[in-house]
Amino acid sequence: MNTYLDCVPCFMRQALEAARNATDDHGLRERILRDVLRMASEMDLSQPPPAMGQAIHRRVRELTGAPDPYRAAKRKYNAMMLAALPELRAMVSEASEPMLTAAALAIAANAIDMGVTADLAEDALLAALRGAPKDLGEGAWAEFRHRADVAQSILYLADNAGEIVADRLLIEELGPDRVTLVVRGAPILNDVTLTEAEELGLTEVVEVIDNGSDSPGTLLDDCSESLRDRFEAADLIIAKGQGNYESLSGAPRPISFLLKIKCPVIAGVVDLPVGTHALLHGG
Amino acid sequence: MNTYLDCVPCFMRQALEAARNATDDHGLRERILRDVLRMASEMDLSQPPPAMGQAIHRRVRELTGAPDPYRAAKRKYNAMMLAALPELRAMVSEASEPMLTAAALAIAANAIDMGVTADLAEDALLAALRGAPKDLGEGAWAEFRHRADVAQSILYLADNAGEIVADRLLIEELGPDRVTLVVRGAPILNDVTLTEAEELGLTEVVEVIDNGSDSPGTLLDDCSESLRDRFEAADLIIAKGQGNYESLSGAPRPISFLLKIKCPVIAGVVDLPVGTHALLHGG
Repeated sequence: MNTYLDCVPCFMRQALEAARNATDDHGLRERILRDVLRMASEMDLSQPPPAMGQAIHRRVRELTGAPDPYRAAKRKYNAMMLAALPELRAMVSEASEPMLTAAALAIAANAIDMGVTADLAEDALLAALRGAPKDLGEGAWAEFRHRADVAQSILYLADNAGEIVADRLLIEELGPDRVTLVVRGAPILNDVTLTEAEELGLTEVVEVIDNGSDSPGTLLDDCSESLRDRFEAADLIIAKGQGNYESLSGAPRPISFLLKIKCPVIAGVVDLPVGTHALLHGG
Repeated sequence: MNTYLDCVPCFMRQALEAARNATDDHGLRERILRDVLRMASEMDLSQPPPAMGQAIHRRVRELTGAPDPYRAAKRKYNAMMLAALPELRAMVSEASEPMLTAAALAIAANAIDMGVTADLAEDALLAALRGAPKDLGEGAWAEFRHRADVAQSILYLADNAGEIVADRLLIEELGPDRVTLVVRGAPILNDVTLTEAEELGLTEVVEVIDNGSDSPGTLLDDCSESLRDRFEAADLIIAKGQGNYESLSGAPRPISFLLKIKCPVIAGVVDLPVGTHALLHGG
């Protein structure tokens, strides 16, 4: 999808939050904001929103010299979710349909998104997980089950650190042997990279590859050739979060999007209210 | 006060809303937003926020060719408030302290602000007026009464159309003979100008002058020399709304600010929660 005019003020807010997260230097924060304003004045709106996010966070990293400003935040949310993992695992194993509960938790954990909410409190996160809606639409869930039943290879495009702990439960239900987990190619916002995947031991559970890109989505032209080959070859692609939806909603491949609807622009595009836990199918 | 970094994303939102209000042409809206982004990238943050607002809305008017994009909105809110006037007048006349109730209504009517809320519904406005807090702080109110009791000349700096109908009640309580009502010098947002003051018959009740400026505040350097003379000579200045507070909070003159606190930046500056109906004294 294109970048909407409504995305622009929201990106300016995100840029300011990113500047504050990366440096205490007021002058540097101002310079970042001015640079981002000028970049935004010239941006290509035919690109999906993650292209703008990529440009903003690259500039923040360049100007602050901080290679991974969200490193501490990523650790925090990973630790938070690891502490919750036994409870989440019990919710899945005790459910009448474990894969549905795992999918519902994977969507609920998508609430961890520092592009939208700068600081999500642990109790709010736990409440979101415990109250995760299990109704993802009867038809949509049947389609997901069918796709998952017949797929021999599944490409699982991750989104955020922390969230990835819930993704692990869904990957376990799908059967890790046929799944490849895809993480971002370099630090971008609080999105998960190989560093976090390794810290969490995910590389011992499932094949993990990085996409070669530092965009907070999956901009195929910006990804590595090997990622694009895997994208073309997979029987099923599971894509987490708004950034992946924004960049891949038009791709002619069997993609199932699992995401929380977090902003009015996406809500308008998919015709669902902000806050919806959504399972959408493309391809 | 200076413009804060936090004002910038908010101004970009306001610019987009202003562009949408002024034209249906998507390409023109995009051009306005790009122009405003570039202007913001180079702005002087040592100026008060109304300087940025002035530049944005000038650009909207230039690019759309619409001399007064909020004309219809100003008429709408004037009509809404005129319909409520008998009820408001009864609230004042039946109050144990009529001037306090008139001041409380004048502050409550400051909720009409299209820079903050693009569309305020009539029932929400009426509820805000009927529930207007009468406690403006005992000391702050005593100071206002004292200033009003001794002043021989009062300069009343208006803010928005619609709101001005409630201001009239306070001016009647103060005694119109010693009051001069100041409106904006040219169309800017939904702020009141001579056109609206005349339509409402205010020019028959009180002396009305314009400030010579199209800023959504009172930037003295941008106002007419005669306004500056009146500003220096007045015994008491009553200034309505955030824009006037932002531009005059540091002026060494006896100013009483009546405003609704509408944003986190001002809330932080005055150390009061967003939503507070505030009576603040300067000078």
